[in-house]
Amino acid sequence: MQIAAFERHGTEAIGVVVSDGIVDLSPRLPEAATIIEVITRWSEYHSLFASAARGPADFALADVRLLAPVPRPSKILAIGLNYADHVRETGLPMPKAQIWFSKHGNGINAPFGSIEKPPVSDALDYEAELVAIIGKRCRNVPKARAKEVIFGYCVGNDVSVRDWQLRSPQWMIGKSFDSHAPIGPWITTADQFQPEGQSITASVNGELRQRSTLDQLIFDCTDQIAELSQAMTLEPGDLIFTGTPGGVGMGFQPPRYLAVGDVVRVEIEGLGAIENHVVPGSGATMIAW
Amino acid sequence: MQIAAFERHGTEAIGVVVSDGIVDLSPRLPEAATIIEVITRWSEYHSLFASAARGPADFALADVRLLAPVPRPSKILAIGLNYADHVRETGLPMPKAQIWFSKHGNGINAPFGSIEKPPVSDALDYEAELVAIIGKRCRNVPKARAKEVIFGYCVGNDVSVRDWQLRSPQWMIGKSFDSHAPIGPWITTADQFQPEGQSITASVNGELRQRSTLDQLIFDCTDQIAELSQAMTLEPGDLIFTGTPGGVGMGFQPPRYLAVGDVVRVEIEGLGAIENHVVPGSGATMIAW
Repeated sequence: MQIAAFERHGTEAIGVVVSDGIVDLSPRLPEAATIIEVITRWSEYHSLFASAARGPADFALADVRLLAPVPRPSKILAIGLNYADHVRETGLPMPKAQIWFSKHGNGINAPFGSIEKPPVSDALDYEAELVAIIGKRCRNVPKARAKEVIFGYCVGNDVSVRDWQLRSPQWMIGKSFDSHAPIGPWITTADQFQPEGQSITASVNGELRQRSTLDQLIFDCTDQIAELSQAMTLEPGDLIFTGTPGGVGMGFQPPRYLAVGDVVRVEIEGLGAIENHVVPGSGATMIAW
Repeated sequence: MQIAAFERHGTEAIGVVVSDGIVDLSPRLPEAATIIEVITRWSEYHSLFASAARGPADFALADVRLLAPVPRPSKILAIGLNYADHVRETGLPMPKAQIWFSKHGNGINAPFGSIEKPPVSDALDYEAELVAIIGKRCRNVPKARAKEVIFGYCVGNDVSVRDWQLRSPQWMIGKSFDSHAPIGPWITTADQFQPEGQSITASVNGELRQRSTLDQLIFDCTDQIAELSQAMTLEPGDLIFTGTPGGVGMGFQPPRYLAVGDVVRVEIEGLGAIENHVVPGSGATMIAW
């Protein structure tokens, strides 16, 4: 099942993607229900969504604007150096332990939203990633049970500002610029997607830059959940960015960073594609009153 | 003004701390209002809180249980190596750039809540810190205007699991264990607290371990907000852990880590103290249904 957040004529809604478009479920959900609430109470909502998935569509996909399927995750956890070819292109040693950092909610962006090139950097880079969405509140989940807590998957771009990422030993700030976590195009539930063997690609202006398969992860989703959940309670809607393959802009000699006007497309076989234009970010001071 | 979250007879409430106790404001706030909403609409709520601050108290402080003043921040941003004496005890070079990492909402803990010693580590450590609370949604805030966006301050303990923090190059996971971000005892509004010159201390079982003053920060709160807000939009209720002075357990030879039964007290002159017992954390698998 494919669960999408979308906007039409200024109204935000939740729906199920079917072959000929999207079924709008918001009239049958509590007012202001979020996808995180749907995930949290999936045992109550499952049959509603399953019957909607048989169609018919209310709207064509072309007539809605897809939104980020999880707009306000409580955590965005991201693993670094998790494909062997990407580790080689960075020149860093092969990791012995999982390397975890954070992105933040201010980065969440629609699957076809604009990525801001910050005025403070010219080292804007892309990272094609599989994103796992947590379905159950959990702690200390052994690897063998980790699939029980994955609600579904989507495509993500772990957009990175390399000079800010690398000017201190901790990467977080360079990973957490506004608009730098586009996700989508929708959530595919875990029962309908097996990561193993699916292709993952990123292209810039139509030129293929990253290409791998999801069985090349050094630590797979179940390893990742086992590790994280020994430290922290994971919550429904938490996002796990699972690492990127080789071919990022930083890996070229000289580096090939993103410029205003570029279009980055990230696609995962079975999950769909997201595509984001690069636009100039503002350096203007904003203080809300 | 001191704004507190508290619980009494099973009911959570928001109040103002006065000399003889606490004034309960929840009857005069919208149902289910959170301190983040109060911060966001402070111009509306200020006069209500200011008049309550003239008392009288509804309850003695001893008759309530204080809660974390911000239970669900959208971001917890923390700076590392930000006091010269702490940098020296780590043996690391003096930082040229601000070093930012994250903690997460699962770590938020009451000012007198229990800190869990994880079963997976014996390297549990304390870090006394000033915590700044963001008051306004903002971006690209210059240093000279940064104080405009600080709502207030509280005391925090950036509890750290050193082996998990240091087994990969990224510290986040070792900083993000459940219960490892106790804050409180309440928020002191920024108009009533000047960090410069105030003392900050940590003690374990009554033995003084950390002692410094808040003018020893290498990068002060205004430097920190200027840096962070060039990357990300800051939101009301976001927490900034501003760094710890020398004297952490890791800095001793041999290290003096926390054990079950220990009591850690962090105090900042003008803000009050938090005190947390160390209890055994569970390694049991929990998967909510």
